[in-house]
Amino acid sequence: MEVYLDNAATTKPRKEVIDAVVMAMELLYGNPSSLHRKGVEVEKSIKITRKVLAKALGCKDQEFYFTSGGTESNNIAIRGIVEANKRMGKHLITTKIEHPSVLNTFNELEEKGYEVTYLDVDNRGFISLDQLANSIKSDTMLVSIMHVNNEVGSIQPIGDIGKIIKQKNPKTLFHVDAIQSFGKIKFSLSSLFIDTLSISGHKVHGPKGIGGLYVKKGVKIKSIVTGGGHEMGLRAGTENVPGILGFGEAVKFLLEEQDPLISQMKALKVYLVEQLQEKINDIILHNGIDDRFAPHIINISFLGVKSEVLLHSLEGDGIYVSSGSACSSKKKGYSHVLTAMKLKDSVIDSSLRISISDTNTKEEIDYAVLEIKKQVELLRKIMR
Amino acid sequence: MEVYLDNAATTKPRKEVIDAVVMAMELLYGNPSSLHRKGVEVEKSIKITRKVLAKALGCKDQEFYFTSGGTESNNIAIRGIVEANKRMGKHLITTKIEHPSVLNTFNELEEKGYEVTYLDVDNRGFISLDQLANSIKSDTMLVSIMHVNNEVGSIQPIGDIGKIIKQKNPKTLFHVDAIQSFGKIKFSLSSLFIDTLSISGHKVHGPKGIGGLYVKKGVKIKSIVTGGGHEMGLRAGTENVPGILGFGEAVKFLLEEQDPLISQMKALKVYLVEQLQEKINDIILHNGIDDRFAPHIINISFLGVKSEVLLHSLEGDGIYVSSGSACSSKKKGYSHVLTAMKLKDSVIDSSLRISISDTNTKEEIDYAVLEIKKQVELLRKIMR
Repeated sequence: MEVYLDNAATTKPRKEVIDAVVMAMELLYGNPSSLHRKGVEVEKSIKITRKVLAKALGCKDQEFYFTSGGTESNNIAIRGIVEANKRMGKHLITTKIEHPSVLNTFNELEEKGYEVTYLDVDNRGFISLDQLANSIKSDTMLVSIMHVNNEVGSIQPIGDIGKIIKQKNPKTLFHVDAIQSFGKIKFSLSSLFIDTLSISGHKVHGPKGIGGLYVKKGVKIKSIVTGGGHEMGLRAGTENVPGILGFGEAVKFLLEEQDPLISQMKALKVYLVEQLQEKINDIILHNGIDDRFAPHIINISFLGVKSEVLLHSLEGDGIYVSSGSACSSKKKGYSHVLTAMKLKDSVIDSSLRISISDTNTKEEIDYAVLEIKKQVELLRKIMR
Repeated sequence: MEVYLDNAATTKPRKEVIDAVVMAMELLYGNPSSLHRKGVEVEKSIKITRKVLAKALGCKDQEFYFTSGGTESNNIAIRGIVEANKRMGKHLITTKIEHPSVLNTFNELEEKGYEVTYLDVDNRGFISLDQLANSIKSDTMLVSIMHVNNEVGSIQPIGDIGKIIKQKNPKTLFHVDAIQSFGKIKFSLSSLFIDTLSISGHKVHGPKGIGGLYVKKGVKIKSIVTGGGHEMGLRAGTENVPGILGFGEAVKFLLEEQDPLISQMKALKVYLVEQLQEKINDIILHNGIDDRFAPHIINISFLGVKSEVLLHSLEGDGIYVSSGSACSSKKKGYSHVLTAMKLKDSVIDSSLRISISDTNTKEEIDYAVLEIKKQVELLRKIMR
């Protein structure tokens, strides 16, 4: 049996997504910039897909831009805003648990002379709204806070955060990395105080190599890649048409099925946590099964078992999980997220991320729990 | 009959390319950064594909980076070199006929205080090697010159250019936009004085949304998109695996068949030009059929006929061509390339780009010539 439980790293594209990608390569292969019919029909298909994405996010069509992925979206938002709003000030705010595409970008801006406040998180991965409020100054240009953390699944209250930011300084811009929340948490940009927001295709059973960026009408932002004026001038480069149409199919599915999909993930997550807690002793759950956490991520330490060893034991059984986040898994050193949560080294060392999707089944969870129990007990015996 | 003659704008992906994309989405859907087998197998497939690309370019594996496309490659090369080599000087050189992804990037650098020399071209689209040599100064940090022009197909002698640059100033870096030449002109980086070079997947019957950048070992270059350290730290973001594997298939085909493919394109081009010259009067060919021009592009004016009108007449017959380049076709104003070649307004106004591929046939060319003749004669009658 093969059980893929690393859905926060990437997801398997749905059949409809693959079909759309193939269709785009076989039929809609023209260049959307070409003036003839073969170009115009492609341009139209992008326009229709943009509407699908805008509907899913609750924004206007012209406020949504296709990018090459989540990392690029975060970079365009942060670098683009900083470059275009230099007069607003030199102060930036983010959190200690952002994805590397945000964190490393802020680190670079800090080296360039910007003052960056990195907000703390508690032992469950939540920022303090008081610390946020107290950090906002008259020269705070940008606040960047992720919606759902990719390692522990904590959901930051982006509604409240947006209100606090705009109350303290109406000029301060608010960027949200929603790459792990899109499709997992329902939200609508129409009712939130958000200026830019990033999403990614391959986290929602869409293709790799495609992402999206919301930019609120009127927000000043500068392109970081210049060229032929594609994507309304924000993101140059011939459009990744197969990626765009595949992303559209994945999102159409979300629009139709989001409520049952979320309920299903949540039920599976609760079942998984309960089974692990019932069957295996000496475990620490770093998040929770309540609504403060995303429905697809659990992060759990099996004390005394190194997570990397457990991960490789489990892959022998056809079970695929993660130790730390995939984006930083090749780098040495402890997870910056679990470190910010002030977990003990031994606890971090044994922490495993299991991330589910609506495509997983109860049978898969049963099999995974059985094998995890077997491997944990075996490894604990060896370690003793 | 449908005849696609806009292959300089984009090409139709080959069947093998589509199969590889599908395979990557169905089977190799893991995240290459994941530590488990589902990640490792994907990482390996990228490694193998990188070798294919490196072989095709004549460089080392570690010198080749995957990007989201040609525009991004040009941006990383130019912005990345300028950012990383500030101590070398403030002077940059490029030509007046570069693609917008190069030209607009230099325009922005000029606004930021860099001194940019834009080299002239003659009436066939060639730079003067003397002007180049005389422009290189002690503080010239970078020269960026395209290999094949996308509108008129002129081939700049990148071998001689590299030698001149390094003779005049060994520290000056040389970037080549080879997006229109890769697969159409044989070259090997091992014998050229080139520091960075850009290519694109969708110009060689590969997927859209994937490109490549060669960076010579030792060249200082800074990432313009930061994140999880992908692509050896130069280009962050989860790899577009389907795009990479599809690109690999397109390039494998080139490696095996490049000589016959080029001969075939060249023969078709010569036939097309001869037929047009024989059958239609009052035409001006802006390039030539000799080896100074790429084998796939002809740019020709049908005097007295507005090219946009002709383009739309031809699409009614199922023939797809371009007026100006696709990348700038939506912008108002004359082609910057034909303007730099000092063509008269009326000549520019009537200029059509016809770009062929090895997938075109003699029958298609015959049909296209017949229809072009018919439409040109009809439109000339109406215009009179």
